[in-house]
Amino acid sequence: MFESAELGHKIDKATYDKEVPTLREALLNAQFDLSQKGKFPVIILAGGVDGAGKGETVNLLNEWMDPRFIQAHAMGEKTDEEQRHPPMWRFWRALPPKGKIGVFFGSWYTAPIVRRVLKQTSAAMLNQSIEQINHFEKMLTDEGTLIIKFWFHLSKDAQEKRLKSLEKNPKTRWRVTKLDWQRFKSYDKFRKVSEHALRETSTAEAPWIVVEGADTRYRNLTVGKILLEALRKRIDSANKPSAKDVAPLHEPIDHLNVLDKLNMAQKLDKKKFNAELEKYQGKLNLLTRDPRFRKMSVIAAFEGSDAGGKGGAIRRITGALDARYYHIIPVAAPTEEERAQPYLWRFWRYVPHTGHFNIFDRTWYGRVLVERVEKYCSEADWMRAYREINDFEQQLVDSNIVLVKCWLAITKEEQLRRFKEREKIGFKRFKITEEDWRNREKWDDYERAVCDMVDRTSTEIAPWTLVEANDKNFARIKILKTLCQRIETAMKKIPKD
Amino acid sequence: MFESAELGHKIDKATYDKEVPTLREALLNAQFDLSQKGKFPVIILAGGVDGAGKGETVNLLNEWMDPRFIQAHAMGEKTDEEQRHPPMWRFWRALPPKGKIGVFFGSWYTAPIVRRVLKQTSAAMLNQSIEQINHFEKMLTDEGTLIIKFWFHLSKDAQEKRLKSLEKNPKTRWRVTKLDWQRFKSYDKFRKVSEHALRETSTAEAPWIVVEGADTRYRNLTVGKILLEALRKRIDSANKPSAKDVAPLHEPIDHLNVLDKLNMAQKLDKKKFNAELEKYQGKLNLLTRDPRFRKMSVIAAFEGSDAGGKGGAIRRITGALDARYYHIIPVAAPTEEERAQPYLWRFWRYVPHTGHFNIFDRTWYGRVLVERVEKYCSEADWMRAYREINDFEQQLVDSNIVLVKCWLAITKEEQLRRFKEREKIGFKRFKITEEDWRNREKWDDYERAVCDMVDRTSTEIAPWTLVEANDKNFARIKILKTLCQRIETAMKKIPKD
Repeated sequence: MFESAELGHKIDKATYDKEVPTLREALLNAQFDLSQKGKFPVIILAGGVDGAGKGETVNLLNEWMDPRFIQAHAMGEKTDEEQRHPPMWRFWRALPPKGKIGVFFGSWYTAPIVRRVLKQTSAAMLNQSIEQINHFEKMLTDEGTLIIKFWFHLSKDAQEKRLKSLEKNPKTRWRVTKLDWQRFKSYDKFRKVSEHALRETSTAEAPWIVVEGADTRYRNLTVGKILLEALRKRIDSANKPSAKDVAPLHEPIDHLNVLDKLNMAQKLDKKKFNAELEKYQGKLNLLTRDPRFRKMSVIAAFEGSDAGGKGGAIRRITGALDARYYHIIPVAAPTEEERAQPYLWRFWRYVPHTGHFNIFDRTWYGRVLVERVEKYCSEADWMRAYREINDFEQQLVDSNIVLVKCWLAITKEEQLRRFKEREKIGFKRFKITEEDWRNREKWDDYERAVCDMVDRTSTEIAPWTLVEANDKNFARIKILKTLCQRIETAMKKIPKD
Repeated sequence: MFESAELGHKIDKATYDKEVPTLREALLNAQFDLSQKGKFPVIILAGGVDGAGKGETVNLLNEWMDPRFIQAHAMGEKTDEEQRHPPMWRFWRALPPKGKIGVFFGSWYTAPIVRRVLKQTSAAMLNQSIEQINHFEKMLTDEGTLIIKFWFHLSKDAQEKRLKSLEKNPKTRWRVTKLDWQRFKSYDKFRKVSEHALRETSTAEAPWIVVEGADTRYRNLTVGKILLEALRKRIDSANKPSAKDVAPLHEPIDHLNVLDKLNMAQKLDKKKFNAELEKYQGKLNLLTRDPRFRKMSVIAAFEGSDAGGKGGAIRRITGALDARYYHIIPVAAPTEEERAQPYLWRFWRYVPHTGHFNIFDRTWYGRVLVERVEKYCSEADWMRAYREINDFEQQLVDSNIVLVKCWLAITKEEQLRRFKEREKIGFKRFKITEEDWRNREKWDDYERAVCDMVDRTSTEIAPWTLVEANDKNFARIKILKTLCQRIETAMKKIPKD
């Protein structure tokens, strides 16, 4: 992989001086078009051997292009807010919006590679990280992001020569630290691990470009030209990333589905309900006050038919919680800033940090429910969403987040009864809109979408709880009980200290 | 101040049960109207004596109203990201947008009061904090925020009784800690300090409401009714906060202004420029690599005539910096999320944390420049902005942020020359728009706005640097030199350790 980047590539000054002005103008034009017409995010990764020109390249881009629309991210030590979230959270919050360029020095590759070099992880763990990275980048490119990955390389000899020459010059001596020489000692190991990582993540959508870093002019021109070509190609291709053929989803031929199997007649009388409510609210309250809760967090994700009773169920949960530690996220239409980002970005914004309890009133499943049924996105988009969502949830669960997903199911008749009731009662009037009546007409489409959703995203780590919600009391207790059980199970795995 | 809240207010159960359903419906309706029509942010502060019902009140609001549009903030220990920003940053980032309600348990009052009780600060320092709070709340209400400040009070006897009764009951014993009894010992001191703070911050726009906390029913009904009345009043008053009479600004009768006094003929030849550029870029680079720089930060704020050369000047700065630590913020039209917040919110978002260097390409001065001239806001709005901006900048400087504000001045003739030149040169074409030509017609209005801005916001802590920019070389060096000097001076005050 690195052979071509150890050939001693060089560009002479005359050629360089001749080519740069044209290149620069073209880059500026491309950047202008990107912000005006292109309207897609650009991510540039700058990885590689120390001293091969990562930092210099970012400075160069800022010099050649309009630095107002480029944002560089160092991604060094994690802040404590970052530590209290899943590992990818810090990258999600730094993603460039449409029309802008984000440059990452340290990226999602840094930790997996460095940890493996230092033997803190096994080969299998590195491969798992690599797979996650591939999924992440696939999601980004599917969402329209242009990813350009530069790896700046120096041969071992060149690296040694560089460190020595820096040390010789009094002006640059400070730049060489003990750490640099220590790292140099693991050059071979680093090379081996990176090569593996690069090979496994050089995908059709986001291939690595290895650039020899020894000669500044060669490096600059190479980076500039590749960037220009990539930008131009995406801007000029009138088409969006071409729609892919999607294998159709099939309904079971006997039309029997998971919703049909629910026993919708289940009920709880008032007396039993009050006793259970007290019991489980008390339990939930105690659980969230356990010291171990400070090391975990909860996402309660609610979806359900219109008038399914999400709001009431949520209030029975919050009634048991300390208002300082929970946060309800009502999911409505995305804001302008959210529309400029990949679909899942607006949910990453609200991933709770440790010790917190976030309740989503509607969720990222909108993609495979309303957006599918109303055709707000293409079939390819919602089809890939199943995997993207599973990846997302895997990351949550891996970070000690208890993810409880509830679908509140009511029958079509019960929905009608509730709609009519709502229209009558004063303070419920705001709960029923024209749209609710329109959605009702698509009952069957929604039902099918729900069944596909359950089939494809009810996983061992994040199962769906289907809640028979014709009787509100029954539903509320089932939800509280499920929450308690799931939190309790997760808590047992956390050391008490 | 607290006398009326020690009378032993009580509401009997029958009255309570009768009034609550109506109140609740009215609150829900008000909240609905707030999110649909009202469209202003609501801040509820819950302060007061421990155990007087702060937490219970927040839970109550969430139970009675739609919790999806209420967000509670605990504001306990600062995270390290919060520590690396000015003290008010954490509150700015938690402000509710239009149509929503934010409830603050710990608020901007907590630290000043507690510190004074613990004798960590002097009476004068408390008063200074109080003045800052008044400015802050004035700004919020001027921006249309409804602020409701509840102070929950318990007499000393009631407080003691409460702690003892909690201790007696095995179910609630855990709630009483040593810290509670310690705090109880400073009851008198706390009462005295809070009384002073409350009195001084009970303004016409945001008065404190002291509520006796002993009887839950009394407390709940009181809070509910006051909140309802406040919401209703603001929603129903068709008018926005009434436009105030504004004293007109006067131009000097001899029309001589600070811009006229600039010597616009100043120049720097290429040779001198290159030498100075190297010198000051080198110096700037060294300064930002000084270990002390990790404890401070820099904001370089650029304003100037169109085609004044901001972009070029910025690139000469970034050329000296490590791309990992600077961030350029191009200020354009506010996004949807930004428009739902007070004016300064979108700049607070980009206040650098320690060790970082943020460059604003156009700034918060837009309020008193383009928004004034183009009449995007009322006269009262931009008139109050001078003080709001001074308050903002005071907070920045108080947090070891070096604030360098540059106005790049060119003559009307030079602007014309540059506009024409830009239209000719390929990669500069995107720099000139119809709007630039339109703005040019208002040259005199802009000039007057600039002079008023300098008069009112060039302060000792954050002076304006007027840059004679007809000659780009001269301007760039003057800016670099100013930056170096200002950073150097600030750095001297930071201990080396």
